[in-house]
Amino acid sequence: MSAMPASAAPTPPRATVAIDDAELQQLDAFWRAANYLAGAMIYLQDNPLLRQPLAPEHIKQRPLGHWGASPGLAFAYAHLTRLIRHHDLDAIFLAGPGHGAPGILGPAWLEGSLGDRQPQRGWGLAGLTRFCRDFSFPGGLGSHCTPEVPGSIHEGGELGYSLSHAFGAAFDNPELLVTVMVGDGEAETGPLATAWHSNKFLNPARDGAVLPILHLNGYKIANPTILARIPREELLALFTGYGWAPKIVEGHEPAAMHRAMAAAMDECLEEIRAIQQAARSGKGPLQRPRWPMIVLVSPKGWTGPKQADGHQVEGTWRAHQVPLADPRNNEENRRLLQEWLQSYRPQELFTEDGEPAPLLQDFAPRGRRRLGANPHANGGLLRLPLDRPDWRQQAVTFAAPGSRRHSNTDPLGRHLGQIMQKNPSNFRLFGPDETASNKLGAVFEVTGKAWLGESRPEDADGGHLAADGRVMEMLSEHTLEGWLEGYLLTGRYGLLSTYEAFAHVIDSMFNQHAKWLEMCRDVPWRAPVGALNLLITSTVWRQDHNGFTHQDPGFLDLVVNKSPAVTRIYLPPDANCLLAVADRCLGETDVINVIVADKQAHLQYLDAEAAALHCARGIGLWDWASSDDEAGTEPEVVLASCGDVATQEALAAAELLYRHFPDLKLRFVNVVDLFTLTPPEEHPHGISDRDWTGLFTADKPIVFNFHGYPWLIHRLAYRRPNHANLHVRGYKERGSICTPLELAMDNQIDRYSLAIDVIDRVPRLAVAGAHVKQALEQKQQQCRAHAHRHGVDPEEINTWTWGGQP
Amino acid sequence: MSAMPASAAPTPPRATVAIDDAELQQLDAFWRAANYLAGAMIYLQDNPLLRQPLAPEHIKQRPLGHWGASPGLAFAYAHLTRLIRHHDLDAIFLAGPGHGAPGILGPAWLEGSLGDRQPQRGWGLAGLTRFCRDFSFPGGLGSHCTPEVPGSIHEGGELGYSLSHAFGAAFDNPELLVTVMVGDGEAETGPLATAWHSNKFLNPARDGAVLPILHLNGYKIANPTILARIPREELLALFTGYGWAPKIVEGHEPAAMHRAMAAAMDECLEEIRAIQQAARSGKGPLQRPRWPMIVLVSPKGWTGPKQADGHQVEGTWRAHQVPLADPRNNEENRRLLQEWLQSYRPQELFTEDGEPAPLLQDFAPRGRRRLGANPHANGGLLRLPLDRPDWRQQAVTFAAPGSRRHSNTDPLGRHLGQIMQKNPSNFRLFGPDETASNKLGAVFEVTGKAWLGESRPEDADGGHLAADGRVMEMLSEHTLEGWLEGYLLTGRYGLLSTYEAFAHVIDSMFNQHAKWLEMCRDVPWRAPVGALNLLITSTVWRQDHNGFTHQDPGFLDLVVNKSPAVTRIYLPPDANCLLAVADRCLGETDVINVIVADKQAHLQYLDAEAAALHCARGIGLWDWASSDDEAGTEPEVVLASCGDVATQEALAAAELLYRHFPDLKLRFVNVVDLFTLTPPEEHPHGISDRDWTGLFTADKPIVFNFHGYPWLIHRLAYRRPNHANLHVRGYKERGSICTPLELAMDNQIDRYSLAIDVIDRVPRLAVAGAHVKQALEQKQQQCRAHAHRHGVDPEEINTWTWGGQP
Repeated sequence: MSAMPASAAPTPPRATVAIDDAELQQLDAFWRAANYLAGAMIYLQDNPLLRQPLAPEHIKQRPLGHWGASPGLAFAYAHLTRLIRHHDLDAIFLAGPGHGAPGILGPAWLEGSLGDRQPQRGWGLAGLTRFCRDFSFPGGLGSHCTPEVPGSIHEGGELGYSLSHAFGAAFDNPELLVTVMVGDGEAETGPLATAWHSNKFLNPARDGAVLPILHLNGYKIANPTILARIPREELLALFTGYGWAPKIVEGHEPAAMHRAMAAAMDECLEEIRAIQQAARSGKGPLQRPRWPMIVLVSPKGWTGPKQADGHQVEGTWRAHQVPLADPRNNEENRRLLQEWLQSYRPQELFTEDGEPAPLLQDFAPRGRRRLGANPHANGGLLRLPLDRPDWRQQAVTFAAPGSRRHSNTDPLGRHLGQIMQKNPSNFRLFGPDETASNKLGAVFEVTGKAWLGESRPEDADGGHLAADGRVMEMLSEHTLEGWLEGYLLTGRYGLLSTYEAFAHVIDSMFNQHAKWLEMCRDVPWRAPVGALNLLITSTVWRQDHNGFTHQDPGFLDLVVNKSPAVTRIYLPPDANCLLAVADRCLGETDVINVIVADKQAHLQYLDAEAAALHCARGIGLWDWASSDDEAGTEPEVVLASCGDVATQEALAAAELLYRHFPDLKLRFVNVVDLFTLTPPEEHPHGISDRDWTGLFTADKPIVFNFHGYPWLIHRLAYRRPNHANLHVRGYKERGSICTPLELAMDNQIDRYSLAIDVIDRVPRLAVAGAHVKQALEQKQQQCRAHAHRHGVDPEEINTWTWGGQP
Repeated sequence: MSAMPASAAPTPPRATVAIDDAELQQLDAFWRAANYLAGAMIYLQDNPLLRQPLAPEHIKQRPLGHWGASPGLAFAYAHLTRLIRHHDLDAIFLAGPGHGAPGILGPAWLEGSLGDRQPQRGWGLAGLTRFCRDFSFPGGLGSHCTPEVPGSIHEGGELGYSLSHAFGAAFDNPELLVTVMVGDGEAETGPLATAWHSNKFLNPARDGAVLPILHLNGYKIANPTILARIPREELLALFTGYGWAPKIVEGHEPAAMHRAMAAAMDECLEEIRAIQQAARSGKGPLQRPRWPMIVLVSPKGWTGPKQADGHQVEGTWRAHQVPLADPRNNEENRRLLQEWLQSYRPQELFTEDGEPAPLLQDFAPRGRRRLGANPHANGGLLRLPLDRPDWRQQAVTFAAPGSRRHSNTDPLGRHLGQIMQKNPSNFRLFGPDETASNKLGAVFEVTGKAWLGESRPEDADGGHLAADGRVMEMLSEHTLEGWLEGYLLTGRYGLLSTYEAFAHVIDSMFNQHAKWLEMCRDVPWRAPVGALNLLITSTVWRQDHNGFTHQDPGFLDLVVNKSPAVTRIYLPPDANCLLAVADRCLGETDVINVIVADKQAHLQYLDAEAAALHCARGIGLWDWASSDDEAGTEPEVVLASCGDVATQEALAAAELLYRHFPDLKLRFVNVVDLFTLTPPEEHPHGISDRDWTGLFTADKPIVFNFHGYPWLIHRLAYRRPNHANLHVRGYKERGSICTPLELAMDNQIDRYSLAIDVIDRVPRLAVAGAHVKQALEQKQQQCRAHAHRHGVDPEEINTWTWGGQP
């Protein structure tokens, strides 16, 4: 093997003077002002410009906030601002480090973008006082970059996603520069550690650029960070290995650091432009470039208190949060606080009236070029409507309900392909290595899989790899979800298909995105963004040989914990219902749509028009499968289903019952939109209690066959009329290597168990049904024996089609 | 900056002949036999030695399984086996690549360890036939390394955790070599990408060694892998940057590959021993070594069919699963299957009687040295009882219930410190950077934080870093959970404390571990392993300035989806209850204990003896807070609580009610063990319906104040008597930056809302209580106004103590 190539060595910043003294002073003043504001935000509820000596009543009773990461964030913000000014750049900035809001809010206030959105906290003494007071204060501003923070598409409340968010923002935004500060604490998380590989999926001709600034701040809450405590050679090797060209900017003396950072930023932009020009010139094949990045090494709590209470503060983990304890009551610390804040010379930075000094006002770019005002960070402003062809073009046709078997997801793949054709730069499909396996492969007739890694001859044989592919596949659900979120929040559309059991990998990301959307509802200037669409497939009921570990329908239980204003769950029973549901979801905004649909071949029940109607209602009685249709009669029992396999088994149970009890009055209800089950006071999709009773009766037994864990249905419906008669079957954590029917039987969602359930619950069948029950139980045993003998279900099960009601 | 140092270049395998021809032949035969078995397992239900020409009836109706990763796994297994033989090594092997079981089951069958555990599938023609047939067959063996697979501590059903599991196994096992194969697909996941940094936490003097073999198999299900498609220089830089010394073994010609791999394995062991000897010699300070690792580059589906159906198979993603389609019906593919299997020359590898040929039998080590029989991989065999001092030594004392405020977690920290002192090599504490912040810092009087990164002078000031520290802190919940699982499964004990909202980061890992434990219940030879203890802290109710993103008590909703045989949830209301609960949990086996307890100062209610009794019961009536104690009287209302903050507010509500309605008969019930609420048929901790009614009455209103999402209580209790009267308060996704009381009010779990709830539900208070309700509502408004004016709750709230019942 060869030694490391020269290219692996860091690019040394060039010796050119990138910033002259006047600009340096201006930039430094902006930075000092930002640092001053960060300190003031944490501590002060009054006297924000220190016009009077600091007195206890000026200080918050409970100072809260995180100082440690703020100076570094403001430093990067200021230098990116300089770059924007020089080049009239279209750029946004993502703050990765935890609790980084003070480092962003200060600059946003200074450039006026914060005041544009929150006039009560804008320029002027009253606004400034309120701005400082409201930080980390009840009803005020949070310590992360919440949706209220102008310029933010990355909340940062949970660590690990800044870099994938940045790439999502850059995709299909060729003119955009996405600068992202990655904290060295955050860098230890798994999601962040693999997101560095996103550079294998960024196309320099088509996409924008991502400029990461890894902030070696040195410390987390109470520990050094790993990356700050490995030899510099290892650090550089690591990022070279990730495919980046790292530049180091290191030090603590402000002027020298400003010069080094300005030079590094200039070089990065130059290199980015060279890469983009080369790729866009059309000369030669597109190759993955080695994009530049910056490693910023500066002390934690830089420029803050050096010492307090006998301990070093600046440059240690003690600078993480509130660096000086209790200055309201501790006179010495109050003196230190005053000294610290005065060290920024606020009198030079703010006018008498509480506005940024003219020097600072002049520093900020104008209008939408300000980082807090760039419309990409309020992506709904740029969002175009999604052009959706009529999904009915892909509808599956058949002679009669339940007469044909067809993959449920394949037609959706065709529809998605058409959407990509019509929306060539604002829709992408995401999935971990499984688009084809999930039977969405029809999209490959239209586009490929984005791939800037090396190519090999064999790729030509069905690999579908393409630098300009619009299908995003990487074996990291975290990265995919992060990309998609970044893509949506900057005004585009997408869908992520993932394995049901492993949707839990992104539970926490789902939670955070739901919370982001919910918070946006209170931020009137946030324009609507495309729905986050999750297609949950390879579901629990078809894990034939994958076994117990691949069986988990519990993602839905997580979803129902989040705000009903932003959560939707659909379980379409067949291909046309999946088309109808998915098409609607794709065009929606400001919600998360979770669609559960298995990829395998399933029976088809509803033609396009019936599917459209059924999905619009979300729940409905299936006449063709019911026997209670005589006017004025009530059914003896309601058999309900939700989910594709659950519906098939429920229908087969109905058929068995009709065969054995031709006079049974059974009503068949199917649920597509899970939230129809919950009262309308609890979710906007909930049907009225009157409609509920119309479907489920006031007093008849209900046997409900559910795709997921059974108690979820009770949770949604426990306040409904006739709940006492609701009997739910679903997955109850029983499974191993088994055939589909065997797994259904283990969890009692199979046709035989359901038929027995009905018999048990209809009083007049108690006696008449005894021998039928026995026969059904025998049938179960035979099926199980067949599976264990042949490894497959009996042919009559695999080829079963709906035989109709009596 | 300097260029890459020479050390970053890969160590070239030396030219020494490490393996002679005879041994090579023997090893190769073992490998060929393993590959033969992998193919046979996937396809054959009979004629496993191809004594007859392959006929349709010999082939499974539905061949299932994954061929692609198997040859590489078996290759590494065989070479590790060779190393064990040479050095009488104590070693285990973890299979990371997805669906890797065929590559492990074959070798385990050959060495006899599989037959030891599953005689019905052991040596001999009948056993071999069954072994092949049962793979991926209903009721049979799974396609991952399930608990049924001898030698496995890593199921591999979900990807990303093999490396952290390996490190967990190596901690405190100084003589153990943990070899772990990492798939290049798995390597793309976030958890795996950061787990490489685990080498900063492994102490060569105290811990065993981890030898990773990154398998550049080249492809996932349908895509190339990232690491296989970056320049080799980048790959080496990446692993050098992660702190490893990578060696590459690359090729496809078996003999050359055996020689290269044998040499690489020899060198790795030599380097590992040199590192360990240096560290254990006591000479010089302990430094982080650059541990060796191997990058094995071989074709996917190596030695399998080259071509099928007009496509290249070997060396592409088409080799991932079943490489030849439908050989039962497709004659050409049947011929290819026969040809392929015969290419291993089974007649040389197996005796007439269906046993491994003597050459192979001789190759495997004996007894417990076999990888499938090493007791570390059935860690319960080696597990010693945990020596726990009496937790009462750390009990908090106070004059009367509710009279003193104290951190709930701090005494537990002291108890954990004592446990670490008494169990110096089989207990560790895990947490992401927050042990001190979670008020468990007392452990640092006993031990430090494991740290092999660079040290700096300022670390001496409260950094608690130590190469032999027993507290494991890294900002990756995935890595911590993986370490802990590996540590437990190899027979040790531990506890992971983590932030409540971010427990969701490891939702999926929790699911998988719960499934592992549940599966172990059907594997009689698996000895009991230490409980997985999760302390969920920094809870929803004390997110004062962190806001909405840090509020999520939903981890519990996930837990209740898993098997009741292995799940436990506790919400101790105070410090002594936390001690009692945690101490019990620490000594348990084969369960997951989730303990929810906030770190802040809370009121203390139960002395040590009362706490012991209350926690043993799990639920109980608190006499001292109730007013229904006259014999023969029933209460008018039951006020119940579960969780520390919920209990405080419920008690404060009771006090308000007693003040306003001195004759109110109120019963106060507290729940510690959440599963007591569910019927005993559904969870072993469920109390009887009779006991339920004894506590909650048959018909009185119940106001239940819960820590988490309220519907969880309904889900657990919906089959209980008097459920219709159960009225639950809990977190309902309302929150922002607010004071503790304000957050409680937003979600109506505060004292005032609860008192109003009671008034609304006790009929005789409907009129009498109207003015009290009004006063309470006014009080709420005043509190909110105070918070918004001063940023803190009113002093009377912060200093409230229990005033007693009438």
